[in-house]
Parts: sequence; structure tokens; C-alpha cells
Amino acid sequence: MSKLKRGLIVSCQAVKGEPLYGLNIMQYFAKAAVLGGASGIRANYTSDIIAVKNEVNVPVIGIIKEVYEDSDVYITPTIKEVEELLKTGCEVIALDATARPRPNGEKLENLVSYIRKNSPQTEIMADCSTFEEAKAADKLGFDYIGSTMRGYTEYTKGISIPDYGFLKKMKSELNAKIIAEGGIWEISQLDAVLECDPYAVVIGSSITRPMDITKRFAKEFEKWKI
Amino acid sequence: MSKLKRGLIVSCQAVKGEPLYGLNIMQYFAKAAVLGGASGIRANYTSDIIAVKNEVNVPVIGIIKEVYEDSDVYITPTIKEVEELLKTGCEVIALDATARPRPNGEKLENLVSYIRKNSPQTEIMADCSTFEEAKAADKLGFDYIGSTMRGYTEYTKGISIPDYGFLKKMKSELNAKIIAEGGIWEISQLDAVLECDPYAVVIGSSITRPMDITKRFAKEFEKWKI
Repeated sequence: MSKLKRGLIVSCQAVKGEPLYGLNIMQYFAKAAVLGGASGIRANYTSDIIAVKNEVNVPVIGIIKEVYEDSDVYITPTIKEVEELLKTGCEVIALDATARPRPNGEKLENLVSYIRKNSPQTEIMADCSTFEEAKAADKLGFDYIGSTMRGYTEYTKGISIPDYGFLKKMKSELNAKIIAEGGIWEISQLDAVLECDPYAVVIGSSITRPMDITKRFAKEFEKWKI
Repeated sequence: MSKLKRGLIVSCQAVKGEPLYGLNIMQYFAKAAVLGGASGIRANYTSDIIAVKNEVNVPVIGIIKEVYEDSDVYITPTIKEVEELLKTGCEVIALDATARPRPNGEKLENLVSYIRKNSPQTEIMADCSTFEEAKAADKLGFDYIGSTMRGYTEYTKGISIPDYGFLKKMKSELNAKIIAEGGIWEISQLDAVLECDPYAVVIGSSITRPMDITKRFAKEFEKWKI
């Protein structure tokens, strides 16, 4: 998907529990993002993915976030989510590619095979948190490997993101196209990420989560001398 | 309106021509902003102001942006906009308080008198671009004086904002409560604004204009070496 090369992909999501969930407005964020220069959109839930695809003409990376009782994996965790995503026709399917056990004992490699077999034109992206996970995803033949989960798994909690060393290591040692995703709030962080020369960059919350953006600013007021 | 003191006011606007205009969704941005810690909301157009007031319980600063052929003033320019705003019941009405001629030969002091006479409980905010305009607004008895128009009038174009010197001068020499508004994108800018000890701070585009936020990030990609 060369349209994504050296491009900004904007993640437009509102998950259950967030104030913008269920309002059917993510496609408007996508429209605004594309008008702002986005080369691609990352979206969650089939309804939002379909609405986004109807609104804009850039590639869409689709995911379905679903929490299962028996697993910490929630980004496109099982075959059920994969099948739903394939129906949307999104250009890329992203999946959690951490080493953690998936629900129902399912295996990442089976999800990969299923997509390759049933929809060879659909590209796949691996959301990783460590270099070992990225290397394993590379062996599975993922088209893209993302830093998405770094800082969000139990064993990477507290790591400062974006992790530029992690991005550079993946870029220099792996075959897949590296996508920098996670933790970009300020221009200086984006500039440092671009220095790592990823294939593309995903930015989400700092563009499309007004509650989170507000929280980050509001925090500074707590320090304001009385 | 002491609820605004030392608080973050989030401006939730989509003007004609912007991608989120006319979608009736500004109240959801307001809801997200309040959940994120906003003490007040600034909103434009009576429909959005009413929708915001129905959605959140914080004070609302209302404006109506209307372009008239015979004037550069567009923020609550005439008595017509003032009357419409008074019907919404918003707690504060903000008006352009620059020295530029208003449409129809109308005068700022008449708009101020009208509001004081017909709705003494409604507070008023002066959107200024220079210290002289702020001083004149102070003499007119405005409750709040904002830096809103600095950088946006012909004679202040190119001034780097936020202008901390401007904020400090207003704070130290005027009676009205000073509201810092305009140009806040990064934490370091907000921190420097808070050092000026304004009464409150308005942040808009960097929270509620996803197209503009995207544009600002996308610009960095142009520098990305090929």
C-alpha cells in the first residue's frame, strides 16, 4: 500500500466507555484528518470502518477491539473479528501481535493464514510491544509492524514512548515496513520519530480524542500557584 | 463567574467552510472537554450554544461569528448577534473589541449598554488584539478581557502568539479579569501562559479542530528526507 509511504495515518477511534462512542461521528474526524493531510485512517469497529470508507478515499487500517474474559489481547483477538473485518473491505487489518495468549486458545499464525488464504489482497499489520514480538511477526510475514502496544502491555508498562531506540532497531533489523504508532503528542516527538525513518506514522489521541487532549492540558492547571 | 477562575475553557467551534460545520456535534466535543477537566466552554452559533448548554453544566461563553460586507469585525459584530445570544442564556457573551469599525456603523459601547440594560446578569468578554484596545474595553467595564484577536487583526499579523508580554501587561495594568486565548498548542506554551497568571485560559483548535491538528503534524512530513 504505497499510498501510506512516508505518510501520516490518523487513528479515529472512540471505544466503549469513551464520550464519543456510539455517536456515529468517527467518519467526520476521518474527513477532517484527510483534509488536514492524512494519507490513511486507522479505525475500530465495523460500523465506523464502513462509515469511514464511505467518507474518505484513503487506505483504512481496520481493527476490532473486543475484550474476552480469558485473555489480555483485545485488538482483533480472534477469527471472529478477522471475519468481520474482511467483510468491511478495509485495505489493512491490524492485529495484536504480542506474545500473550489469545482468547479461546487461538493462535496469531492461524489468523494470518486465514487472511492470506481468503483475502490475499488484504495487507496485515502487527501491533507489537517488544522487539522479540516484532521479530516473530516479521517471520510470520506481516506487511507492517507497528510499535502500537509498546507501553501498553504489562511487561512494557512505564517505558517512555515513543521509544526511538525500539523504532530504529526494528527498522534496521526487520524486513517488514515499520509503522511508528503511539505516544505522539508534540511536534518534537514527531520530529524524533521521523528521524527513525519509519515507513509511516500513526497518530491518534492527540488528534481525535478531545477528552484526552483536554486532560493533558488540564493537568498543568493543578500546578498553578494559588 | 468564579467557576471559571484558574480554569481551562475549551472552545468548541466549527465555522462555515470547516469540515465539522453543520453536523450538530459540537456538544459532544463539549461533553468530552468537560469530562477531561474543562471548567467552561466557548461556543459559536445559537444552535451549538443551546446544544452545548443542554449537554454540560459549566458556564458557556457564547459568540456568533458573522461576516458583513462593510467590516472586518466578525465576532458578535452587531446588535442582531447580541440579541440572538441573549436568547440562549449563555453566561458570558464575547464580542470583538478591536478598534476596527463595526458593520452598519454600530458601536461597541452601545452593544455593552444593551447587554447591561437588558440582561445585567450576563457577563461580557472583550476579544482584543492590542493593549490600547484592552484598555478601552477595561474603561467600558468589560468583565473579562481576552487576547483572542492578537495575531488575527491586520495590524497584529505576524506577532508570535501566545504573547506573554501582552498578557502580563494586561494583568498588571487593567481591572478586568484577563483571559488568555489563542495560540496554545504545546504544554510548554500553556505553562508559560499560566506563569502570566491570567484569570482563565481558553484553548480551542488544538483540542477541537482535528483538521488543524492534523495539518500541524502533516507539515513535519514535508521536511522528511526522501
